[in-house]
Amino acid sequence: MADTETLTGTGGAPDILGWSCPLPLRDHPRVVMGHGGGGVLSAELVANLFAPAYGGPLLAGLGDSAVLELGGATLAFSTDSYVVRPLFFPGGSIGDLAVNGTVNDLAMSGARPAYLSCGFILEEGVETAVVARVAHALGAAARAAGVEIATGDTKVVEAGHGDGVYLNTAGIGLVPAGVDIRPQRATPGDVVIVSGEIGLHGIAIMSVREGLEFGVGIESDCAALADLVAAMLAVTPDLHVLRDPTRGGLAAALGEIAAAAQVGVVVSERAVPVPPQVANACAVLGLDPLYVANEGKLVAFVPREHADAVLAAMRAHPLGARSAVIGECVAEHPGTVVCRTPFGGTRVIDLPMGEQLPRIC
Amino acid sequence: MADTETLTGTGGAPDILGWSCPLPLRDHPRVVMGHGGGGVLSAELVANLFAPAYGGPLLAGLGDSAVLELGGATLAFSTDSYVVRPLFFPGGSIGDLAVNGTVNDLAMSGARPAYLSCGFILEEGVETAVVARVAHALGAAARAAGVEIATGDTKVVEAGHGDGVYLNTAGIGLVPAGVDIRPQRATPGDVVIVSGEIGLHGIAIMSVREGLEFGVGIESDCAALADLVAAMLAVTPDLHVLRDPTRGGLAAALGEIAAAAQVGVVVSERAVPVPPQVANACAVLGLDPLYVANEGKLVAFVPREHADAVLAAMRAHPLGARSAVIGECVAEHPGTVVCRTPFGGTRVIDLPMGEQLPRIC
Repeated sequence: MADTETLTGTGGAPDILGWSCPLPLRDHPRVVMGHGGGGVLSAELVANLFAPAYGGPLLAGLGDSAVLELGGATLAFSTDSYVVRPLFFPGGSIGDLAVNGTVNDLAMSGARPAYLSCGFILEEGVETAVVARVAHALGAAARAAGVEIATGDTKVVEAGHGDGVYLNTAGIGLVPAGVDIRPQRATPGDVVIVSGEIGLHGIAIMSVREGLEFGVGIESDCAALADLVAAMLAVTPDLHVLRDPTRGGLAAALGEIAAAAQVGVVVSERAVPVPPQVANACAVLGLDPLYVANEGKLVAFVPREHADAVLAAMRAHPLGARSAVIGECVAEHPGTVVCRTPFGGTRVIDLPMGEQLPRIC
Repeated sequence: MADTETLTGTGGAPDILGWSCPLPLRDHPRVVMGHGGGGVLSAELVANLFAPAYGGPLLAGLGDSAVLELGGATLAFSTDSYVVRPLFFPGGSIGDLAVNGTVNDLAMSGARPAYLSCGFILEEGVETAVVARVAHALGAAARAAGVEIATGDTKVVEAGHGDGVYLNTAGIGLVPAGVDIRPQRATPGDVVIVSGEIGLHGIAIMSVREGLEFGVGIESDCAALADLVAAMLAVTPDLHVLRDPTRGGLAAALGEIAAAAQVGVVVSERAVPVPPQVANACAVLGLDPLYVANEGKLVAFVPREHADAVLAAMRAHPLGARSAVIGECVAEHPGTVVCRTPFGGTRVIDLPMGEQLPRIC
């Protein structure tokens, strides 16, 4: 499922290498912003609240989308709601996010995305021109991603009970025969590859929202990754794990994979491509780029024997030109991500609690 | 697509038997509550704003769900967002609605619903106990309807930018071979059957929200209709149209079918089952029961030769025990629904502008 995956089978707060949750999460009497941040608080909500309420085996899966059989076809199915603020930002809009976010969740199962649904929750009084601009962005993004918006719905809530436009998309896609990509398949020895420079989406949103200027303009990397994934699968169907590091950034994506497969991950900090503007902005704001959201990147766990060829295929694709090997999967410290610093030390990459910046997507 | 169907191919305001829209809809500069009401204003939004922006053939369809081919399977795919106020009401909750509404949209294509996605947009500060109660209602309704919640997402917005809990579900189901149920198939000679008493959902919501008392308590009819549809399909796969008369009530459902197929519909007002409490409440409030929302009823256009057997099968099902023939499909006055009053007169049943009561589902 998308973004709110269960981190542990037991539903307790993670306790990794002595790190434990500082808040009595189970006893949160009210929802806080961090419950929507895609980190530990989101995972707690899934593990302690949604999973017991819903039951069923699929929700217990940890992929970005559910993979299921229907009418003889193997389908991926995923949903995300979008509440990003502002609606339009450098490099994209809520409409682009709503298409690319769900398309990418499907692609992370190796599926070829095919159809999207789209539900609008509009706030009374929002300009219809704004709604039209969002709808046109949605349509253009869908055409670019090769998916069709097949069905939709619109609801309106009173002024003061929304924020202009909220969106939800759900998507379905076809998983090719022989493809089995999910977090549990991370295997010691796998090479960890990221498809390009990280942190652009989060810093772009932050800069426009807070009116900050970090030298050259920073644009969101918002993009549909299904075509890049198809190029990787053309090298080998045996990719182990794909994940798009959105809310919670690379840290959350790697942490969830490590927890799901009970493997260790070692990342070389120096190898992670961080653009200078992102590095500067993070330094000013006291942020770690590993935790900043991306909307057009993926991280892949690839069997070592295929790593060179997959990396070459990624670099040959416009959306993967800056792909880089950033680390490896190990048998040691299962469930934990460790980062080798440029100074020869190591640090543990904790799962984020919530999101550094609310309503990033 | 669900609830916001295009009413005319040209996107203009309907002009039926001299009735024309009193508002310059295309020029609405801001969204009004009626844009979410499932009536003419909603249809205008789809025809003039969403359809041109998205393109694609499926959205131009008029069913409650899109029917599409994927991996050799014929699937129905539908979505609805739910913003009902209050979250819990006599006979159900937003959780029940979110399951049954989407399950019913799938069933109205003759599909057997299989999987749902579920996206929450929570308002900061809402009690987690409330969220848990909604989630448990969702889970219970899904189990009752025989569908699995396969994937989900949670976002949180700041206090003052939501209303506790908004939900979206999307659903997929399998359309059996030989089944082709859609509004365009309405054919002169078809018998029009409704599956039971109308108006219960709308009046239940209205009474609890406005603190009105209409004698005996009125409960929402919220229920999943897939099993009832399966019983009807067991009689004949050749049902022409199915529709669940939610927002805008029976009037909107029949009006949309008449417009889509360019047929006339004649309804006998006396034959429409209206419970006394609904009739009383409507009399007090100045409402027409034909326009009041239902969440557990369907209207069917059935070829005359199968009508008796289908009606018998419906009456044998717990959710169709009060099924009744309410009218017929005719070649005259294409696009228009006419009601024969108990006094021997006739009146035109216009499409509603918006919803009598906002946020009914």
